[in-house]
Amino acid sequence: MQKKEDIIVAVDGCGGDHGSRHIVSAVTFAQTLYPHMHQIIFGPASLADELRSERVDPKRCEFRLAPQIIPQDAPVTDVLERWQKSSMRLALQCVKDGEAQAMVSAGGTGPLVVLARHLLGTLGNLRPALAARIPAGPGRYSLMLDLGANAQCSAQDLRDFAQLGAAAAQLILGIDAPRLALLNVGTETYKGSHLIQEAKALLEQERKLNFSGFIEADRMFRGDADVIITDGFSGNIALKAAEGVYTIFSKVPGIKRFFARMAQPDWLLPWQYNGSVLLGVDGIVIKSHANAGNDAFAVAMVEAAKAVESGLTSGIKDCLKL
Amino acid sequence: MQKKEDIIVAVDGCGGDHGSRHIVSAVTFAQTLYPHMHQIIFGPASLADELRSERVDPKRCEFRLAPQIIPQDAPVTDVLERWQKSSMRLALQCVKDGEAQAMVSAGGTGPLVVLARHLLGTLGNLRPALAARIPAGPGRYSLMLDLGANAQCSAQDLRDFAQLGAAAAQLILGIDAPRLALLNVGTETYKGSHLIQEAKALLEQERKLNFSGFIEADRMFRGDADVIITDGFSGNIALKAAEGVYTIFSKVPGIKRFFARMAQPDWLLPWQYNGSVLLGVDGIVIKSHANAGNDAFAVAMVEAAKAVESGLTSGIKDCLKL
Repeated sequence: MQKKEDIIVAVDGCGGDHGSRHIVSAVTFAQTLYPHMHQIIFGPASLADELRSERVDPKRCEFRLAPQIIPQDAPVTDVLERWQKSSMRLALQCVKDGEAQAMVSAGGTGPLVVLARHLLGTLGNLRPALAARIPAGPGRYSLMLDLGANAQCSAQDLRDFAQLGAAAAQLILGIDAPRLALLNVGTETYKGSHLIQEAKALLEQERKLNFSGFIEADRMFRGDADVIITDGFSGNIALKAAEGVYTIFSKVPGIKRFFARMAQPDWLLPWQYNGSVLLGVDGIVIKSHANAGNDAFAVAMVEAAKAVESGLTSGIKDCLKL
Repeated sequence: MQKKEDIIVAVDGCGGDHGSRHIVSAVTFAQTLYPHMHQIIFGPASLADELRSERVDPKRCEFRLAPQIIPQDAPVTDVLERWQKSSMRLALQCVKDGEAQAMVSAGGTGPLVVLARHLLGTLGNLRPALAARIPAGPGRYSLMLDLGANAQCSAQDLRDFAQLGAAAAQLILGIDAPRLALLNVGTETYKGSHLIQEAKALLEQERKLNFSGFIEADRMFRGDADVIITDGFSGNIALKAAEGVYTIFSKVPGIKRFFARMAQPDWLLPWQYNGSVLLGVDGIVIKSHANAGNDAFAVAMVEAAKAVESGLTSGIKDCLKL
């Protein structure tokens, strides 16, 4: 089926707020964006029909039936027992079995993290976190984590995120000694919660990390730091607040919308940044925004392929000597 | 000096990132915006010179010398002992003594909260919090708190904020049974940190509060809730992230800036929303953004006058039966 350089991505064809047609559009757009990508898609029979009717090349996109769909708001308590035949789990299993090199899902974060940890295992004893490339100016990026894998974090968790983030930034951003900063309410050394102060003390002890102190949320998109470390609660709030304002600006009504399009900073288009990677599990798992459009979901698949290309998982293991 | 309906605002003429000239412009603009406002300004001798040279009416604006300026990044540990003659403290004392009905400062949040609590006292045993009106659509507002008075909060603190916020929303927004929501990473009942889950349980027990569950940060400016409750850490992060994106949009370079001005949603101008009120102390204290421009600092003074007009402090006491 594939040539030597081909990359196979397992796709959770359920989850997400849109239907099957949306998945099909995303699949074909991803193939255009990344010519060496093959997909194995897990989903309901209706998705197979859709793929056929849209004449998606079966040589590049294999369909496999998944009888279960995990609802977006499913609690994590019984995920392992209840959703054995879900599209999300089967797609992860596909990575576990070595059939695919990466997995993409727009499903719920909670179930995805639990299933990924269970099936793929974690790297060392580090706590996995969702990391995303965020825009930091024209053609520049920072890496930010955690974006919501852990609503409750300890200072040790934040140190884990720093180590994972520093390693990943070298591979994803190509930066040798990435500057790390902790997201905080001020840059003065005494500011912040107990968690932040404790994490700062831990990070200052890590000689291998290029820790540069605190960063405030209004500087997130300015490239002041290469890696922004935060707990999953604050990270999620920061990114969603930013998205909220972005949406208000880009969806102003009437004639203003024309001006808004003309004014748009090209480097700040959220759909270009869809797909956060679950760092800290032994395999490449990409989480797409649940309400991602076709284009954005395709971008998440491309992020998966690029992560494979950069040798992300083995690179992190090397870097952290795991 | 004043007619019966006049309102006297004590102004901390130091703090803030700009100099004396900026304060003078703000003072005169505030007088224009609010014709019945008188100010008592505390600051260095240079500020007196500036006021004279700009011919600010001494009948509406009285200058008083303050020999000390608390630096923006001053730690709170020795605030009470060290800064007895600071402009911030003297302005607060002015409210304490009944000379002014409200106080405005662009100085550091930490010192302001400590000094205000010490000089004015707290309402009941409630934990004070910074609350701001945030835009929620054209001509609509929500109230959000805490925005940074408390970097470390307990669930009980969040319940205090809910009570203060509900009372203040009635007076500031004129809403009878304001809908309260807790800022969280999702709206599903099981989501969030331990703090959020504990606070939710407490709020659900408060029969007098119209608690409606969780709100996500991308819906902050949509009016989904009248009062948004959050700890000072997350609240500060959310608002600064929003400001960061706003700034990127409004400061795009080149011709795009013209389009950006044309596209601007009028209701989302940050300078129109400067001035958060420190709820929970026995007196009206308004915190201005440290880097507020002239216009924004004037708006903070007007917020102070409006808070006096609405009978904020006595209204909250009545409402909470304190």
